[in-house]
Amino acid sequence: MSKDKCKILDCTIRDGGLVNNWDFSVEFVQDLYKSLSEAGVEYMEIGYKNSPKLLKGEAGPWRFLDESFLRTVIPHKTETKLSALVDIGRVDENDILPRSESMLDLIRVACYIGDVDKGLELIQTFHDKGYETSLNIMALSHVSEPELREAFEDIAKSPVDIVYIVDSYGSMDSKDMEYLVDKFQTLLPNKQLGVHTHNNMQLAFSNTLTAVHKGVTFLDSSVYGMGRAAGNCPTELLVSQLKNPRYELRPVLEVIEKHLIPMRETCEWGYIIPYMISGALNEHPRVAMAVRDNDEDKDKYVEFYDKLTSPEIIVKHK
Amino acid sequence: MSKDKCKILDCTIRDGGLVNNWDFSVEFVQDLYKSLSEAGVEYMEIGYKNSPKLLKGEAGPWRFLDESFLRTVIPHKTETKLSALVDIGRVDENDILPRSESMLDLIRVACYIGDVDKGLELIQTFHDKGYETSLNIMALSHVSEPELREAFEDIAKSPVDIVYIVDSYGSMDSKDMEYLVDKFQTLLPNKQLGVHTHNNMQLAFSNTLTAVHKGVTFLDSSVYGMGRAAGNCPTELLVSQLKNPRYELRPVLEVIEKHLIPMRETCEWGYIIPYMISGALNEHPRVAMAVRDNDEDKDKYVEFYDKLTSPEIIVKHK
Repeated sequence: MSKDKCKILDCTIRDGGLVNNWDFSVEFVQDLYKSLSEAGVEYMEIGYKNSPKLLKGEAGPWRFLDESFLRTVIPHKTETKLSALVDIGRVDENDILPRSESMLDLIRVACYIGDVDKGLELIQTFHDKGYETSLNIMALSHVSEPELREAFEDIAKSPVDIVYIVDSYGSMDSKDMEYLVDKFQTLLPNKQLGVHTHNNMQLAFSNTLTAVHKGVTFLDSSVYGMGRAAGNCPTELLVSQLKNPRYELRPVLEVIEKHLIPMRETCEWGYIIPYMISGALNEHPRVAMAVRDNDEDKDKYVEFYDKLTSPEIIVKHK
Repeated sequence: MSKDKCKILDCTIRDGGLVNNWDFSVEFVQDLYKSLSEAGVEYMEIGYKNSPKLLKGEAGPWRFLDESFLRTVIPHKTETKLSALVDIGRVDENDILPRSESMLDLIRVACYIGDVDKGLELIQTFHDKGYETSLNIMALSHVSEPELREAFEDIAKSPVDIVYIVDSYGSMDSKDMEYLVDKFQTLLPNKQLGVHTHNNMQLAFSNTLTAVHKGVTFLDSSVYGMGRAAGNCPTELLVSQLKNPRYELRPVLEVIEKHLIPMRETCEWGYIIPYMISGALNEHPRVAMAVRDNDEDKDKYVEFYDKLTSPEIIVKHK
């Protein structure tokens, strides 16, 4: 495994926030930053940098990161850099300070293939403000080869530093991952690549390792796999298995023991059958999430499977 | 993926019995057999064929399979064959009927590398009685290359049909699996190969797929992963992902919904941090199992990690 080259980006707060509506205490976020710093993790994604003006609904402060608030949370930065994610149409560029005045090092733009042009506009803005940037292309398992080729012509010419392969539906296996990494490497020879996996079929960690073996360097993960629906590649497994002396497992175990185990009692993520089914069928997890939210139906797996595989529903979803 | 060639061997009753002391109801075993038959699973391992005379302690009937009892449980066999596992020194050969009079089709012998000679004696006996046979070599991650070569000379000459690669400690990744499959294929060119994985590092399913891609044909699994400690490769994932039209996911979902979810409330298996730690350290899960049995210590992960990585303990374990 390409020692020293990989960088782990822990997105527990950002992706895990999708599970608990970003209801993380300041103490937890501080403990997590300390733990990830001691573990040698290179980046911590501390939330979304979306604008509360452009996005309705109440949520914890990690959904609308504010620079002065961030300074109170992390008064002393370590070697672990901070990143934030933005969604197309939900970010106000005027909110973004120049990097020299910001707590953030890396801004990541999430978009679907049809919005790559809008994504690259944002990337240009953030790049000009001095940030490292990444473009995270979601739902790749639903993207055709011509769509990919067309989008990549513009991406290759842009200043973006890292381009992410995102397995949004947790539907990929190692062959899919190898295929996409080959494709990305061929079409974007001058970009670093990243990978963000989901654990619907218990393949998040192994798909991440497959990507590492192929030369992908930015690896998304979350502590104890906390993330939407089936969750992500667990940070503790990466830290434990990547052959790099900078990584330490023990600090990650501390934060799991102190925070993640109690948290898992009050909200759920992980290998849960409706998410396995949606992953196997290459579907967005939203229908499975709705089922898990309904106490009466949450364990009616056969009914859920029949619903997702009946011809009418397939038409409706397409 | 080599379609049509693979055979799934569901060992929920046998390996899952290590979790609940084989306390499965007859109704559950019958429902499981029906479900696996409808799902197209080729083998169901219905328990251990050990002798109660040679093994102390109380346990459910699936630990000491009795032919007349089995006939009452499965009055009508389907295409799904039945197998049983025996341990060296715990089986009385006089208990084993000729296959023509038995409910069992396949007898599997589990042994450590040092007992391969004893294992092959049993294999010869079962083979002579007409059974399909397999030799399951445990704890391969602790076996040296010369030990393997020596044992394999005898195995190659024996009548055994299938030889299993067993990742007893859940410590292998895809590179380890590829290495072992290559080794087994080179040294045992005339044998079918099987794989039995554990899920300590969430790699049971992906390691099984790696083995499939390399040409391994017998795949152990259990429904919802039920098995000792971190459990096994989940049957539902194999049935869902192997490209063979005979496999159906729905019947497996039925048995998970009806039986496995309630069972998981009363006994535990799966991705649990002490098992992750023992897998990452390539250790037998018994120390982690003892911790999980102790209500006060079960979630003291850091203490457990420190214990397993302190120099004194390492010396003691070796």
